[in-house]
Amino acid sequence: MTPQELRADIAAGRMTGPTAGLLDGHQQANLAIVPRELAFEFLLFCTRNSRYCPVIAVTEPGDPILRFGATEADLRSTLPRYRVWRAGELVEEPTDITEYWRADSVGFLLGCSHTWEGPLRRAGIPIRYAPDTMAPPVYVTTRAAHPAERLSGPLVVSMRALPAEHVARAVEITARYPTGHGAPVHIGAPEALGITDLHAPDFGPSPVIEPGDVPVFWACGVTPQLALPNADAAYAITHYPGHMFVFDHLVDAS
Amino acid sequence: MTPQELRADIAAGRMTGPTAGLLDGHQQANLAIVPRELAFEFLLFCTRNSRYCPVIAVTEPGDPILRFGATEADLRSTLPRYRVWRAGELVEEPTDITEYWRADSVGFLLGCSHTWEGPLRRAGIPIRYAPDTMAPPVYVTTRAAHPAERLSGPLVVSMRALPAEHVARAVEITARYPTGHGAPVHIGAPEALGITDLHAPDFGPSPVIEPGDVPVFWACGVTPQLALPNADAAYAITHYPGHMFVFDHLVDAS
Repeated sequence: MTPQELRADIAAGRMTGPTAGLLDGHQQANLAIVPRELAFEFLLFCTRNSRYCPVIAVTEPGDPILRFGATEADLRSTLPRYRVWRAGELVEEPTDITEYWRADSVGFLLGCSHTWEGPLRRAGIPIRYAPDTMAPPVYVTTRAAHPAERLSGPLVVSMRALPAEHVARAVEITARYPTGHGAPVHIGAPEALGITDLHAPDFGPSPVIEPGDVPVFWACGVTPQLALPNADAAYAITHYPGHMFVFDHLVDAS
Repeated sequence: MTPQELRADIAAGRMTGPTAGLLDGHQQANLAIVPRELAFEFLLFCTRNSRYCPVIAVTEPGDPILRFGATEADLRSTLPRYRVWRAGELVEEPTDITEYWRADSVGFLLGCSHTWEGPLRRAGIPIRYAPDTMAPPVYVTTRAAHPAERLSGPLVVSMRALPAEHVARAVEITARYPTGHGAPVHIGAPEALGITDLHAPDFGPSPVIEPGDVPVFWACGVTPQLALPNADAAYAITHYPGHMFVFDHLVDAS
């Protein structure tokens, strides 16, 4: 299956499940759509927290068609599921947002960490997710993101527990993927981030941790999603967790 | 001399010359100040052309004080010279812009290539500038920058002529400095960029080119300066060429 075929299946309603784990090697991205009047603040928040919100592409205001390299896609229907927010409240989780798109909508595609799961696996580094999940546990830290006018919130991290002998290599590999949040932001010592119980994540499944494992934390794209409701904007639309946009292009290490 | 002392001398009017070549190892930056209503477009232009406009810091709208890491400085007086634009026309080149700062002014500090001249020199790679200059020749190419709404213009490059055996090492070294425009964007073949005569640059001094040299082109921070007048904004303020802002922090290779 190609990214174009996957997006066609999604747009036709034949595929509504998560994209996590599909089309290994293709760039996947989180989505945020905000009104033009919030666009500077959102882009500034991403710039000031670029490890957490790596900007891959931004659409022209009002135009729902994303054009980026070889990729051309209608953002209103080519993600499997969305979240629609109004004045900071989650109001719906539809599979198509055509009726919610406005003349002032600006779409932001932000890189996500699925980018480097393939390269880690190929390097022999085990990524152990909970059975039947393709997602890491996610924790809200006690550290604040750098605010940008109305946008503020906590820094959020994802965690993978790795055998101690693989930690340095995992740093080297993930550092090559700035559109996948890059190198870890924190290794070991979860309490320094305000995380008291690794088995009680704020989002996602409980982790699989084996004796000798070290918890390794990466910047997480949930960070802008927690800041957006605080802006109290007229509306915002995000992807539903795990249900990302898939680009035509393969991820190349930098 | 420390960066704080240098900025104090500049603010007191005791120093009005170029910062190029001063305080080797400290991050220097280009400046652009635009009205808040143009800020999204300018930041988007920088994001879409990040090799040419690497954003280091953005001020809070209306606040002339830059706070970034240990650096705290009044942007109205701590660069040696500025350029003030109105509706796309250059109107003045003052040494202080206190009278031009407005309640809607947003300042952008953009990385510049002086960042890696020290590391290249220390690696034994000769950077040959014209006598009595500390600046490279700069060329306007026939390639267009990725536009962002009202902002559009040509891509601009700087050039250093290097002995062929040093070219690959220069790529490796400069690639480590994303806030210095990173790796070259083009090596050899100036005609492919629309440059017909290397000895007739659009800005800066004529180059020193010796037999066996290869022209190596880096993304240049003049790119946003040529796009800004096209936006026809009420005003814009930029640094005067070679007269940059000097941060407290040293540049670290990534």
